[in-house]
Amino acid sequence: MIIVDISWSIDAAMTAYKDKKMVNVEQIKSFEMHSVRESSLRLGAHTGTHIDAPAHFLVDGATIEHTPLSATVGPCVVLDLMHVDEAITKEDLVACSIKPGSRVLFKTKNSLRLAHDLFDYGFIYLAECGARYLASQKIAAVGIDYLGIERNQSGHETHLALLSSGVVIIEGLRLANVQAGEYFLCCLPLAVVGAEAAPARAVLITL
Amino acid sequence: MIIVDISWSIDAAMTAYKDKKMVNVEQIKSFEMHSVRESSLRLGAHTGTHIDAPAHFLVDGATIEHTPLSATVGPCVVLDLMHVDEAITKEDLVACSIKPGSRVLFKTKNSLRLAHDLFDYGFIYLAECGARYLASQKIAAVGIDYLGIERNQSGHETHLALLSSGVVIIEGLRLANVQAGEYFLCCLPLAVVGAEAAPARAVLITL
Repeated sequence: MIIVDISWSIDAAMTAYKDKKMVNVEQIKSFEMHSVRESSLRLGAHTGTHIDAPAHFLVDGATIEHTPLSATVGPCVVLDLMHVDEAITKEDLVACSIKPGSRVLFKTKNSLRLAHDLFDYGFIYLAECGARYLASQKIAAVGIDYLGIERNQSGHETHLALLSSGVVIIEGLRLANVQAGEYFLCCLPLAVVGAEAAPARAVLITL
Repeated sequence: MIIVDISWSIDAAMTAYKDKKMVNVEQIKSFEMHSVRESSLRLGAHTGTHIDAPAHFLVDGATIEHTPLSATVGPCVVLDLMHVDEAITKEDLVACSIKPGSRVLFKTKNSLRLAHDLFDYGFIYLAECGARYLASQKIAAVGIDYLGIERNQSGHETHLALLSSGVVIIEGLRLANVQAGEYFLCCLPLAVVGAEAAPARAVLITL
């Protein structure tokens, strides 16, 4: 069995959405004082690899503890979209093999970014037409290799097309070392009651 | 495929080790003000379901981002130890089928506790002799259904026997609704750089 970690490591210097750094790891017990190490964590719900729940953009949307794990645990396909320069469109996706009920992960030029780079305001994103196509295909989840799945959409059309159709959104994947193809995905967010998102750890498993 | 969540949900009122509450979920953007919900989280590294790294008790121990995921992803056995009244001993474990390289989860009377109960200072724990036996069997990981795996050990012998032998420790599992038997475990901690522990989400998968 091969397990590939596709999550971002979490530290204070990691790339943050629009460079709003929110991570702090504070040591509250030390060997010198307490003969044990203990830490407290502070982080945004959208830190690094994370899942957006419907409550992020829908007033009556479900919060993250209600996200069905069956959406983010199961067979997935990593799509090679390294040729895309701006937005992933319906045309890009129609050309791919996308199965209903599956999980679809985008490997794009975003994966060339390093963990501590400044935020890239020109990141590759999913266009509204692509989101609508994925929703029509009734996929379970979509994942992208950057901290957002939409860009410069005042109406948040990409998020709304996905969340209102029950497609789970995974943001902040790390796919630089992953080849396109089929895998078993296990992406598990913390079950933070009442939150609109939560950090997650994600792995690809090859049996 | 059946996926059973064996993690604690995270909220401010959840049971905390020795009742030291550390969880805070703060809404930093709201629909009323920003047309989007966004939260910030504060929590101890040992909140709810979590993994202890060697750095918790060993001065030169590895921190949580280095915990091999192969230790907490793979076949596991849930042991029914509901008859244990105080400590899980070597004798209790010798009677069970424990395979080298496997992951061993304890279902005990701790699982009768509810998510918001006060901390139970008399929780069922793993005795040093049990920890040494598990280390000798070269298991990959051990998990317990409470917020600690040792109790009242000033020398932390149970933790040290496990961590110094490379056995990964999962604490805070929820096994009330799980029957003893064999499963596929996927327990994924956040990769918090430099921390001695991290919250994790854990599921049992039956293919």
